[in-house]
Formats: sequence, structure tokens, C-alpha cells
Amino acid sequence: MTLPAPLTGVVPPVCTPLTPEGEVDVPSLLRLVDHLVGAGVHGLFVLGTTSEAAYLTDRQRTLVVESVVGHVGGQLPVLAGAIDMTTPRVREHVGAVTRAGAQAVVVTAPFYTRTHPEEIARHYRLVAAASPVPVLAYDLPSGVHTRLPAEVVLELAAQGVLAGLKDSSGDLAGFRRVVAGAREQCGSTGFSVLTGSELLVDAALALGADGAVPGLANVDPHGYVRLDGLCRAGDLERARAEQERLCALYRMVDAGDPARMGASSSALGAFKAALHLRGVIDCPLTAEPQIPLTQEEVRRVGKFLAAAGLL
Amino acid sequence: MTLPAPLTGVVPPVCTPLTPEGEVDVPSLLRLVDHLVGAGVHGLFVLGTTSEAAYLTDRQRTLVVESVVGHVGGQLPVLAGAIDMTTPRVREHVGAVTRAGAQAVVVTAPFYTRTHPEEIARHYRLVAAASPVPVLAYDLPSGVHTRLPAEVVLELAAQGVLAGLKDSSGDLAGFRRVVAGAREQCGSTGFSVLTGSELLVDAALALGADGAVPGLANVDPHGYVRLDGLCRAGDLERARAEQERLCALYRMVDAGDPARMGASSSALGAFKAALHLRGVIDCPLTAEPQIPLTQEEVRRVGKFLAAAGLL
Amino acid sequence: MTLPAPLTGVVPPVCTPLTPEGEVDVPSLLRLVDHLVGAGVHGLFVLGTTSEAAYLTDRQRTLVVESVVGHVGGQLPVLAGAIDMTTPRVREHVGAVTRAGAQAVVVTAPFYTRTHPEEIARHYRLVAAASPVPVLAYDLPSGVHTRLPAEVVLELAAQGVLAGLKDSSGDLAGFRRVVAGAREQCGSTGFSVLTGSELLVDAALALGADGAVPGLANVDPHGYVRLDGLCRAGDLERARAEQERLCALYRMVDAGDPARMGASSSALGAFKAALHLRGVIDCPLTAEPQIPLTQEEVRRVGKFLAAAGLL
Amino acid sequence: MTLPAPLTGVVPPVCTPLTPEGEVDVPSLLRLVDHLVGAGVHGLFVLGTTSEAAYLTDRQRTLVVESVVGHVGGQLPVLAGAIDMTTPRVREHVGAVTRAGAQAVVVTAPFYTRTHPEEIARHYRLVAAASPVPVLAYDLPSGVHTRLPAEVVLELAAQGVLAGLKDSSGDLAGFRRVVAGAREQCGSTGFSVLTGSELLVDAALALGADGAVPGLANVDPHGYVRLDGLCRAGDLERARAEQERLCALYRMVDAGDPARMGASSSALGAFKAALHLRGVIDCPLTAEPQIPLTQEEVRRVGKFLAAAGLL
Repeated sequence: MTLPAPLTGVVPPVCTPLTPEGEVDVPSLLRLVDHLVGAGVHGLFVLGTTSEAAYLTDRQRTLVVESVVGHVGGQLPVLAGAIDMTTPRVREHVGAVTRAGAQAVVVTAPFYTRTHPEEIARHYRLVAAASPVPVLAYDLPSGVHTRLPAEVVLELAAQGVLAGLKDSSGDLAGFRRVVAGAREQCGSTGFSVLTGSELLVDAALALGADGAVPGLANVDPHGYVRLDGLCRAGDLERARAEQERLCALYRMVDAGDPARMGASSSALGAFKAALHLRGVIDCPLTAEPQIPLTQEEVRRVGKFLAAAGLL
Repeated sequence: MTLPAPLTGVVPPVCTPLTPEGEVDVPSLLRLVDHLVGAGVHGLFVLGTTSEAAYLTDRQRTLVVESVVGHVGGQLPVLAGAIDMTTPRVREHVGAVTRAGAQAVVVTAPFYTRTHPEEIARHYRLVAAASPVPVLAYDLPSGVHTRLPAEVVLELAAQGVLAGLKDSSGDLAGFRRVVAGAREQCGSTGFSVLTGSELLVDAALALGADGAVPGLANVDPHGYVRLDGLCRAGDLERARAEQERLCALYRMVDAGDPARMGASSSALGAFKAALHLRGVIDCPLTAEPQIPLTQEEVRRVGKFLAAAGLL
Repeated sequence: MTLPAPLTGVVPPVCTPLTPEGEVDVPSLLRLVDHLVGAGVHGLFVLGTTSEAAYLTDRQRTLVVESVVGHVGGQLPVLAGAIDMTTPRVREHVGAVTRAGAQAVVVTAPFYTRTHPEEIARHYRLVAAASPVPVLAYDLPSGVHTRLPAEVVLELAAQGVLAGLKDSSGDLAGFRRVVAGAREQCGSTGFSVLTGSELLVDAALALGADGAVPGLANVDPHGYVRLDGLCRAGDLERARAEQERLCALYRMVDAGDPARMGASSSALGAFKAALHLRGVIDCPLTAEPQIPLTQEEVRRVGKFLAAAGLL
Repeated sequence: MTLPAPLTGVVPPVCTPLTPEGEVDVPSLLRLVDHLVGAGVHGLFVLGTTSEAAYLTDRQRTLVVESVVGHVGGQLPVLAGAIDMTTPRVREHVGAVTRAGAQAVVVTAPFYTRTHPEEIARHYRLVAAASPVPVLAYDLPSGVHTRLPAEVVLELAAQGVLAGLKDSSGDLAGFRRVVAGAREQCGSTGFSVLTGSELLVDAALALGADGAVPGLANVDPHGYVRLDGLCRAGDLERARAEQERLCALYRMVDAGDPARMGASSSALGAFKAALHLRGVIDCPLTAEPQIPLTQEEVRRVGKFLAAAGLL
């Protein structure tokens, strides 16, 4: 199966359920995939930030891609993150995830090293030249600590280096510039502009985004599929109400005590606790060295589920 | 050979020479090691930031450690970076570099993910529990985007989790707090406090640091060995003059045009150009996606060498 | 005249035209006010960031407020910034601008000093207690270097301390949280939630914002008034087209060479050049130490005006 | 009295004691000045960050300068901060503090606005052109959110625009570059390079600094005068011991609970509590909106004083 151009709709960044020993829990992962596919999502993004790719060993990463690709059997496209610090290491991941069957790869700018727009552009050119599948850029300043400049993205789009953008910058105005520029440049050639926001899917689609990659769609895929449908149907009143329901649900990410843990532990811990409470995965554990939620914090997550009608 | 406790003196972070094709150039690497050992350095740190560890594949990393450890044959300690985003991935690198013979590992806080002091402490505990050799913490906020809090380092030192600190924070006052705290806590038990600064080695030793890990020592190891000796002999006048000569030499890191490349490309490009001009390595190439220096920029590097009496 | 609750529509942050000697050019200022009022804007915000309040002396600030308030004579509300580092200094500005006739004041969190949410809340409580007019919070992390936490804003709204928020954070998701929270808490009591974005007015209004404070409305007030009207009429297709025209026009802010000047010099220089080219103000000078645009850079501004049909 | 060139020794940034009502407590201020002068300090810096200049109204600022200048009567130089956002506002403060008798002014880069090295240089040129007394640059990235580039400082030093630098950047390597550059450029012409660090005075003097401006010298001026003397006498062993005693004392700045207040509230609250406990000032209050220390937190400050032999 090849990647639709553009890719549209809801493409959840799939959580990676773990066993109590920290291994990938493949049966839970496949139940989660069924939960998402059954809700009507339009693609799957494995090995992203929400998938805890940063915490998975190379062996675990390959296992995730093989398991998911094998399970969905071409029903819908599977994108895989190739998350590492620089070109040579990213190239290795691209090889591994495409051998495992991924239909597109998602790649950040270099990180850990101090980089520059020229180096970011060179990075994508080199990665794309070595990739058998389309490459999407992943703008994640909270992790990468640089922004992907809109001009760089648009230049690489025009040159056919990049097939799309997943934007997790939180900067909807910058995102809009890419949407407008891509439409102008690429016309119907199908550059995919996807928002990584959970909270602004309605706004992003209204200004021309192709789709959304919301981490919270693990917990409530039906909600995001419904939201996407309402937006495409132009029923903005109900779209806004659905989005606001999801915004309220999203606040589960603050369930963990910030005096005791970081934002990843809290947010990913909440998503996994919610999937556990909903009966989708066996164990809510996040990868090391993240701090687990306490029982009280899990109860808070449950309250958000109940308020959203999900328990 | 086991790691001295504390480790003292000059421990260069060894550059990784590459072939024009981007492979590790082992003969050049071994010539560089001879250049350093011949100058009298007190240890070697491979797979650090200056070594472009962030750009080396797992296979290349292992090749570097095996080559260097095999070559020095126990004459002096070899520390290796285990640089990756989180605990599970770092643990894999610790396994690889210690199987390849490293006598200590150097580990940063988690990066890419949004972390927290509690998670940083947990990370080091888990890594140390799995490491057959001593673990040194690596404070590199320019890459990792969090600071290692002094209290966390001191707590882990007191508990025997950490064997030392390589401080590349640029914050000498914070470093002093660790030096003083470690002396108070550990007394003679040998926690190693090492500065990663090229520019403040005299100041760091004066306030009680055990040693230095200066990238510029690749280019002028004799200078840093001399500086270390003068400081230990209490000849502060000549130490300061030597340090100031090295500060002037260090300014080669700005040889690259900041409109065209990032700080890593410029600094690592300058170090490698200098090693090439001095006849130590065959090819000055830095790893992808870094931008190579132009001929004019290399000429600038040559002028710094000439001014420092190194050509 | 009292402040409408909520304040809705387009409330431009009024530029402050200067003479070649750096004095406030009152005739040009009043022509600019006529240009804005004639276009149908719904309020005026003087002494904001776009007004170069940071560059105006106390005497000049008072002159601006007196001139504008006297000129509009109660036709529409005039809000004034009271921009300074801490409570005691802000309190003095509140006194000065309200004596000069401002109907509301706009106040940032403390800056220059290292602050804390508790101190931010205390700051607003103290300022509001001393203010004879409503206080709006001004979230400007690019200048103030802290964010206004949504919970702090909502708590102060619920307590009647704050009458509104001008959000220039660039974070539409955070803004949405305040919009939703304020609606829930205050219901019809009229807390005003205003976006400071030029580029997302349609999106902000769609998710429930009361109005917009776009700097670019100095240059094209008719465009923003039209946009506001289309949004309120539910004509989203044409609203989006109008917004996209304004987005293209906004790119004039990059007219200045970033190698030679900062973002304020470039953006405010472009707005003033545009107002000069459109014949509204006599002199395009920005305040010291900003760097003036070159003739070539001014020509670039002219091209944006021409492309937008404004010349 | 004119400013010595260079200014050397200990130049405390003088705290501004307040009454319970938030007014400047002039009798306490003069007792504090006597406490400092009696200990042998070499100059006084009023209206700096430690003086809470950011919190003082214009009237209060003038009162502080007049009171201190009148009281010391030319026995030692009095420098005054002219702390504000941009050139026109700084120029007003320069006029006010020099009319009140200050013998030099201390000026930061522009803040609140987004600035650029060219604008910073222009700012200092314009301020110096309008100042009847020497201008020192104040590098305070924690407040100003830009660094003063070493090249800009050195260029302005060479041109006679700047008479000195007070460096509170925490970056001793960057400071060293200015020290070395100034010595090379200015030779004996007397550019003053002063560290704002409490914790690295010995190191700064060892590498060539002219003097120090440590906030903690309010609390223990005798300690810093002793430290300065030991460094100048070359008694490095005892200098280091004295510096380490002061480092331990400095940790009082963490007395305040970070869950409840910012770093300014805690540090300035601790200095004032210490001055109150030592009987120098009547009231330990800090300016609004800072959060006062609790009795328990004040007790912690007392313990630091006791441990340092100051109670």
C-alpha cells in the first residue's frame, strides 16, 4: 500500500503498551490497533513521541512496526517515526522501519547537536535520498529545541524531498503559512499538512490542514473521527462542541504531580492509564525512567474519562 | 585497567576522523590517539560530543571503542560516551561500549523527552545498576536542554551511583558547588569532578577540580598537559599565560560562517581542519549533515595554529 | 464612556508616529486615529507594544493618551498600556494614563525580575485595587519572558480582578482554554478575551474570542473590520480569503534585514513605512535604538501594499 | 569625585531598605551604607538589580541616589543604575541620577523589546553621548534575556563609549574574553571589568578582573573586602577558604519556598532578612509584588548567618 497524497483524516500516534518488565506487549498493542481501526481512523503513526519511540530499543522499534503492519495488512497506511539525533543514525532507522513494512517515515530535525537551517535542509535531503518511502518532516520544538522554518519546509516540499509535515509546534500561525504555501506551490500534487495538536483540530482543518495526529486519539478515537467528519461536512457548531469535549478530556495530561514527574510521564502515563481503564491494554506502565502515576492520579484520569462519557 | 578514583589530569574527548565516504578512519584515529598519548594526556574520552558520537551509527561507535582500547592496551584509562535519549537505549550503549572494552561510561540526562530531576536521578540509578563499570554524569545543557542539578549529582555521588561528573554547563559557580559538596561528602573516596571547558581549566583546577576534558586538547594536547602541570605546581603566572594562549587558539571554533552553518559544524570542522593541517588525520570531514568549512575558512584555522606556534 | 463588557471587534494597537527628532507627532497620530475610526474599528489600544510604549518617555506616553482620548471624544473606548517592570512602577503608569482619560488599562506580568505565578497574581490584585478603570492582562511572552498561566487568568477573572485578556502568546490552544474557562465561569458577566494575533483572527473568533488587537490593523483597518464582520456573519469562506490576504500582507514584517536589525525594528519599521506610503503619517521613523529601514527595504513594504491592493 | 579608571575592589550593589508601607527607609539605607563603608568597600552601586531598582518609582530612585551621595560625601565613588527598557527612557534616568550626584551610570541592553547586537551598540552610543558621566554596561541575561556579545563590549570600549562592564552573565569564559580583550585594547586606559558573581570573585580576580559587585556583600562586606585583599596579596589558599565560606553563606538565597515565590523574592528576601537579623535595617520587606519570607524561612537565613559567624 502506498501513502495517499495527501494523507487526510485522523492518524493517531499509536501508544506502545509495555509489560510490567518493560517489554513491548504485542497483544495489547494489537488490541489498541483494533480499537483505533475499528473507530475509523485513516492511518496509523507508530514510533512517534506518543509511542515512546525515544524509550524503545532498536529491537523493540522493529517489533512494533512489524506487529502493526502485519496486523493491519494494508487496510490503512502505517507511518513510522525514525527518531534519532542526526542523519547517519536516522538513515539506519529508516532502513529498519521500511524493511519492517512502514509506508512512510516521519523525521525530526537533528537534535542534541547545535544545528542550523542549512543543516536541517541537508539532513532531509540526505535522508530522503536514502529512503524507499515518502518522508514527512516532524516539527517538535519541545523535543528538538529548534523550529522547522516554514521556508525550509516549503522549499523541500517544492523539490519533492518532503511528502508532508506533522506539526507539533503549537504555533498555528506558522502552520498556516505552510498550509498556504504548500497549496500555492504544490497545488494538487499532494503535500500532506498534518497538525499534531489535540486541541485545535477544528481550527487546523478550517484553515486547510489535511489531517490530524492527536495523541489523545488513542483514548478516544471515535471522538476525533467524529470531529474530522463534522469539520469536513461543514457542521461547525457541532464540530466545535466535539472539539471542546476533547479539550476537556485532554486535561488528563496534568494528572501527574509536577513536583514529582515531568510532562512526558504525566501525559503518557495518563493516556496509558486511560487505555487500561477502558480495557484496551493490560498494563499502564510507561518506559523508564518515567515516573508511574499513583493510584490517586489514576483515579483523576478516570474522572476525566467519566466526564467525557468514556467509562 | 580500572578507572583511577579520582581521575585527574587531561582527558581529551577524542575526535573521530572520517574518510571522505563518512566511514570511521581507523588509521587516522590511531594516529590521533598516539598524538594525544605522546603528549602525556592522562586518559581518553571517546564517543563524546566532540567525538561526534551523535552522528555515529552503533556499528561505528563500537568500532571506535574497540580500536582505541585495543591500541592503548591499558596504558591509560578509556572512557566512552553512552549517548542516547533515555534509559533503555542508554543501557544498550553501555553494554556495547563496555563489551568493547571501555573502563567507564559517560551518560547525559534524558533528552528529546521532557524530563524532571526525579526522572534524571532514576535514569542514573537504573543505568548504573546495569553497568559493569563506573558511570560519570555528563552535564551538557546545550545539547540536553536541562541542567543536572547540583543536589542530584551530589546525592547520587553520596550513594555511589555516580563516579564522577563531566561538566560542560559553562556555569563555573554551579561546578564549584559540586566540587565543594563532593569533597565534603566523599572525602578521599574519589568522586571525579572534571571540567569540559577549554577556557577555564586554570580556574577550575584552582577551585578544586580533578581534571579537564577539553575538546581543543585534540589540537594542542601538549598545551593542556603543560597547563595542568603548571597548575599542579602552583606556578599560576605561567599557568595563566598558557591558558590565555589556549583561549586565543580556541577562537578557531568561530572559523565557519554562522550564516551558513551551526556551531557544531564550525567548531568540530575547525578542530578537524587543524588536525589535518598538523598532519595528524587524513581528512578533515565532519559527519552529515554538518556543513564543511570552505578553503578560506580552513585558512583562518591555519592562522590560529600559526599564531599559537603550532604550524 | 465605560468599557463594553465584553469588548468585541477590532481594537488596533495604535502606532505612535514620531517626528524626525523623535518627538510624538501629534497631527500624524490624530490622522492615524481618523484612519482607524473611519474604517469602523471598535476601540483603540494606545501605549501597547506596537505603539512603541517601551520607547516612549513618561511625558510622551501621557501626551499620546491625552491626544487620542481628546480627539475621539468618547466615540469609542480607548485602552492604554501601563507597561513597566513591577507593581509600584505600573501603578504610577495606571495613574497617569487614567488621569489622561484612558477607559481601561492593559498590564503585563512583571518582567526583568525573575517572577512566579503567585507573584503575577499578587501583581494584578495590587494593580487592580489601585486602578479606577478595568484592568486587562497582557500575555506577551516574547517581551516578558514568562507565560500568563491560564489558571491564574481564570482565577483573577472569577474574582473580578481582571476584566479581560489580550493574548499575544502565539499559543492558540492556551487561548482556547481561557475562552472556554471564562465562558464557563463568567457566563454573561463580560470578561473580554482578545487575540493579539494578526494571522489567526478568523480561528480565534471561531473558537469564541470576543475580538482582536492586530498591529497590522494600523495598515489595513478596513481589512480587519471586514474580516470581523464576515466571521460574525458566519461567511467563513470569504472570511478565510480575507484572512489569507491579510496574512500575505503581514509578511511585510520581514522587510528588514535580520543581519542588521531585530524583529521589532523590522516589523514596526514596516508598519510605519506602510502608513507613510499610504499617506497617513508624515515620517516613518521608529524610536531609538531601533534601526531604520533602508530605501530598498521600504520598497519591499510598498510591494506588499501593492499586492494587497492598498496603494 | 570622578570614577577611578579602572574601578577596583569591592563595589556592593546596595540593597534598598523599605518601610512596612513600601517607602524607601532612608535612615536604614544610611545605616547600611555606613555598614558597607565601615567595612572598607571601594565603591557603592545603587539602583542595581539587588537594589530592587526594577521596583522603585522614579521618585524613589532619585531619593536613593541623593541620600547615598549626600551621605558618603565623596569618600568613595557612587555608581547608579539607569535601568529601563530602551534608549529614550534610559536617557531620562541617566539625567535624573546624575543630577542627584551619581558619578557613573550602569546600563543594560534594551529589554522587553526584541533587540539585536547592532541596536545594543546604538543604544550604548546614544546613552553615552547624552551622559555627563562614564557609562558601564550591565550584562544581565537573566533579566534582559539577551547576552551582551563580547565583541560589542570590546568595540565600544575601544571607542571610549563604555567605561566598564558589570558582568552578571554567569559565563566566566565569556567574561575572560572581555578581560583579555580590554587589556589588549585599552592597556592602561582603564576600562573596568567587574564581576557580578558572589561565588567566583577569587577566580575572576585571578584571571584579571578589576573588581566585584557581589549582592551578598550587603550581608558580609568584611568577608568580601578580606577576600579581595587576600587575592591581591596572592594568598590564594586563604582566599579560596574565604570564598568558600562566602559560597556557603550565599546559599541563603534558596531560603524561600520555590513553590510559593520566585528567585528574586527568595534571594532579595534573604539578604534583607539577614540585614535585619544583623541589626542593620529596620524592616526586611521586599517590594511588591514579591512574596515575603515566612518566619520559618527567616530562621533558615539566621542559620546561614550563624554558620558563617555573623550572628
